[in-house]
Amino acid sequence: MPPTACLLIIGNEILSGRTQDANIRFIANGLARSGIALEEVRVIPDKARRIVDTVATCRAMFDHVFTTGGIGPTHDDITAACVAEAVGVPLEIHEESYRKLESYLGKEKFNKARQRMAWLPRGAVPIENTVSIAPGFSIANVHVMAGVPSIMQSMFNALLPTLEGGAPLCSVAWHADLREGTLAEGLEAIQNDFPTLDLGSYPFERADGRKGVSLVAKGYDSDQVAQAGERIRQLIDSLGVTPIEGEPAP
Amino acid sequence: MPPTACLLIIGNEILSGRTQDANIRFIANGLARSGIALEEVRVIPDKARRIVDTVATCRAMFDHVFTTGGIGPTHDDITAACVAEAVGVPLEIHEESYRKLESYLGKEKFNKARQRMAWLPRGAVPIENTVSIAPGFSIANVHVMAGVPSIMQSMFNALLPTLEGGAPLCSVAWHADLREGTLAEGLEAIQNDFPTLDLGSYPFERADGRKGVSLVAKGYDSDQVAQAGERIRQLIDSLGVTPIEGEPAP
Repeated sequence: MPPTACLLIIGNEILSGRTQDANIRFIANGLARSGIALEEVRVIPDKARRIVDTVATCRAMFDHVFTTGGIGPTHDDITAACVAEAVGVPLEIHEESYRKLESYLGKEKFNKARQRMAWLPRGAVPIENTVSIAPGFSIANVHVMAGVPSIMQSMFNALLPTLEGGAPLCSVAWHADLREGTLAEGLEAIQNDFPTLDLGSYPFERADGRKGVSLVAKGYDSDQVAQAGERIRQLIDSLGVTPIEGEPAP
Repeated sequence: MPPTACLLIIGNEILSGRTQDANIRFIANGLARSGIALEEVRVIPDKARRIVDTVATCRAMFDHVFTTGGIGPTHDDITAACVAEAVGVPLEIHEESYRKLESYLGKEKFNKARQRMAWLPRGAVPIENTVSIAPGFSIANVHVMAGVPSIMQSMFNALLPTLEGGAPLCSVAWHADLREGTLAEGLEAIQNDFPTLDLGSYPFERADGRKGVSLVAKGYDSDQVAQAGERIRQLIDSLGVTPIEGEPAP
């Protein structure tokens, strides 16, 4: 079984509808390639009690917890303090990060607000931020990253190679001009023959209004995924429709 | 205090990175307009135990639970059965929905797989689906909708006017060519003066690479929001930069 993970998106801006999430899919794809199973995502507000409780709960449930958001210089950037509390260690100045930030920003700009970004939980390992220097960090099984997509991506790309994953998640997709209700019975039979895989069907509508469905087989055993893919192809063919290989959505 | 809500996005396709979420923001915006506070979003896989446990947990924590996904005709469409279990009622044929679907699809197409879509928890109130007829439903404080965005939107628009909300969430936004670290102290002072509002700062980058920040005040008391907005304008002005009113992001 691959290691499991949960992603916490911390920030009021997604919950209020102000901001369209731009981080979940990037992280989901990276974890899938690395053979780490993303089992849950939670979006929670910038409230200390909620962050502490959620981190504590999720780090007991999953092998890894990734967080985005709340590590900047403003009053609502409370993620580092909350993660320290959830893990049970004090928050303190991380000397190396402090020096790096001071030298990057200059003494004058490195005011009290910006110094907050150099406070990490005791024992944390910084995650490099090539965009704006202020680091993310890993402490125990919690990996804390920025919410701004370009900075999060810089951190995630630095972090991911340091984590031990399993075989990558593989998938095969076929799409067909069919409706779900027509192929549901055949698809269930394939699922029953490949109980360790996830077989999913995803209806879509083309720009010209024609409706179709993508059938996807996913799992960590590439041979099984290939066999299930062939069965899906045969199923579509048996229903008198041309199976189209490729990306799940047109 | 406004009623609270949690949104559950049920489906492996977001967790595997296959699909970009297209439902959170639509629902978040609708709830904000209706004065229902979206306090959490969870994305969970198509696994019965996880769905049942999450629905049971969240419906105890929040006034409303909204779900999307898993109510189609295929083997992985298990949301209705899981919600029935979480609420503690049996799943049974909903006669009116059965007749509607049969008459819409015709007897021949209305096979066993498609008949699954007419099984609802006992006592559920259907939510109309003008796109493809198969209904969503409300049972107790759980509101179950489709995952396909066009169908979800049809259901959500039918459902929302039936729920009692509070005053709508109001917000004021100013953006400025400033960095968060420069205004953090001033923003915190405003937050302290308006403890019932959420004040947030959101860095952004323009297409030409110029960096700025959006300062947003949000809350359910429109007078307070307006006053905090004026204080934000004054703060930006006092830092020697022109405050730009309007949409939070450029």
